[in-house]
Amino acid sequence: MAQKVSIVKIGGNVIENKEELSKFLIAFSKINGPKILVHGGGKLATELGEKIGITSKLVNGRRITDHQSLDLITMVYGGLVNKQIVAALQALNCNAIGLSGADANIIQAVKRPVKDIDYGFAGDITTVNANAIDAMLKNNWTPVFCALTHNKAGQLLNTNADTIASEIAIAMSSLYETTLYYCFEKKGVLLDITNEKSVVKKLNTETYKELLDSKIIADGMLPKLENCFNALHKKVTTVCIGDVSMLQENETLYTSITL
Amino acid sequence: MAQKVSIVKIGGNVIENKEELSKFLIAFSKINGPKILVHGGGKLATELGEKIGITSKLVNGRRITDHQSLDLITMVYGGLVNKQIVAALQALNCNAIGLSGADANIIQAVKRPVKDIDYGFAGDITTVNANAIDAMLKNNWTPVFCALTHNKAGQLLNTNADTIASEIAIAMSSLYETTLYYCFEKKGVLLDITNEKSVVKKLNTETYKELLDSKIIADGMLPKLENCFNALHKKVTTVCIGDVSMLQENETLYTSITL
Repeated sequence: MAQKVSIVKIGGNVIENKEELSKFLIAFSKINGPKILVHGGGKLATELGEKIGITSKLVNGRRITDHQSLDLITMVYGGLVNKQIVAALQALNCNAIGLSGADANIIQAVKRPVKDIDYGFAGDITTVNANAIDAMLKNNWTPVFCALTHNKAGQLLNTNADTIASEIAIAMSSLYETTLYYCFEKKGVLLDITNEKSVVKKLNTETYKELLDSKIIADGMLPKLENCFNALHKKVTTVCIGDVSMLQENETLYTSITL
Repeated sequence: MAQKVSIVKIGGNVIENKEELSKFLIAFSKINGPKILVHGGGKLATELGEKIGITSKLVNGRRITDHQSLDLITMVYGGLVNKQIVAALQALNCNAIGLSGADANIIQAVKRPVKDIDYGFAGDITTVNANAIDAMLKNNWTPVFCALTHNKAGQLLNTNADTIASEIAIAMSSLYETTLYYCFEKKGVLLDITNEKSVVKKLNTETYKELLDSKIIADGMLPKLENCFNALHKKVTTVCIGDVSMLQENETLYTSITL
């Protein structure tokens, strides 16, 4: 039987709150066996941007990554947040190594083609080098990815962290039995957004369609769940959505997703 | 005979000039065999700091790394500069991997003890993990270090890039035949600072003392040369100082240092 690897994605809401982040990193460091962390962005870059006069550009509600925004993201997430997480994990005896997709050429992407909208330096992933990640895991290093990729022609690209996590999980599935955790501020997929206890414990293709039809799942949860089902279709073994406590072995309140 | 490894340090003046940096990276990518890059800082962080109202604090002419300055350094050098160099090297088919000393716990340091002056979050190196660097070289990865270390207790520390380069070279000397290159904007150690052609081609302990006595070597060159001789005393095979062209095999105008 193949060895197991856990891929955990944390979102901006966890990163922005020092106490929550600290709680998360303790839980993450305790996961048995090889593990990989992917961290998203949040408001930190936007806040710094405002201080230096770089405002996020939006077209039809979608964020555009211009040259200045990319530099800002590279500084804040590729630098400050990534290295602070690495240093904190090292203190917890988790041998973390901070990475962008450019490092060791692990994640290649192409600049998103311009159709109706030019998203700027936004990257769509083309390849994930599972062997390079595997070499790190075999050295007992824990890769910590920020949400940056590159085009192998010198250009860094801003890339959705949920997608990075699912694409890494998919790539690792050729070598490992993979579990993908989407860790955010809620207990899982909720039937009633105002009730934290209304967690859908088991979600499969059929129940997902029902929830979609009844418009219970919408907004930000939609692309996340698309990533989940995409991962399961491409041989990822287990996909879960929940808050930090999901990473503890005795926790049962989170959403487990199957085909 | 042991395999060779080249350790190259580039300073702030090279990093700040896009054309010079590009020229350097091409030359660096062409170095045969395993290689390691260490990049310093420069004015980029200071410039960004001024925009967001963080000014460098100086005590008796020495820079103090307070909390805000450390964040700034982590963003600009650990993030922006490091990842841009990695992406540029990847485009040159050099399989670069960007690192701080916290990553894979490669460089541990202690916060500089407070005597007369509290330097803040400045790190004095205690250990370099040569085996971790060796594991990377064996994967054909080219480590690219920014000038940050950590104390293994969660704290990142600002550390002199010249010292990082010499300490890495010293550590690697247990496994490799090491050459340490200090690459900066001048052709080498100059007898006359106003004459670029007055390069001291060979410098040893004896001639170094003569130049010191005659006050020809002073200011910024002093700690650099102390690092050079320290490295040679601790089994580094070759140490050279010069500009980008020193990395080309047919170049002869640079300073070669021996004991």
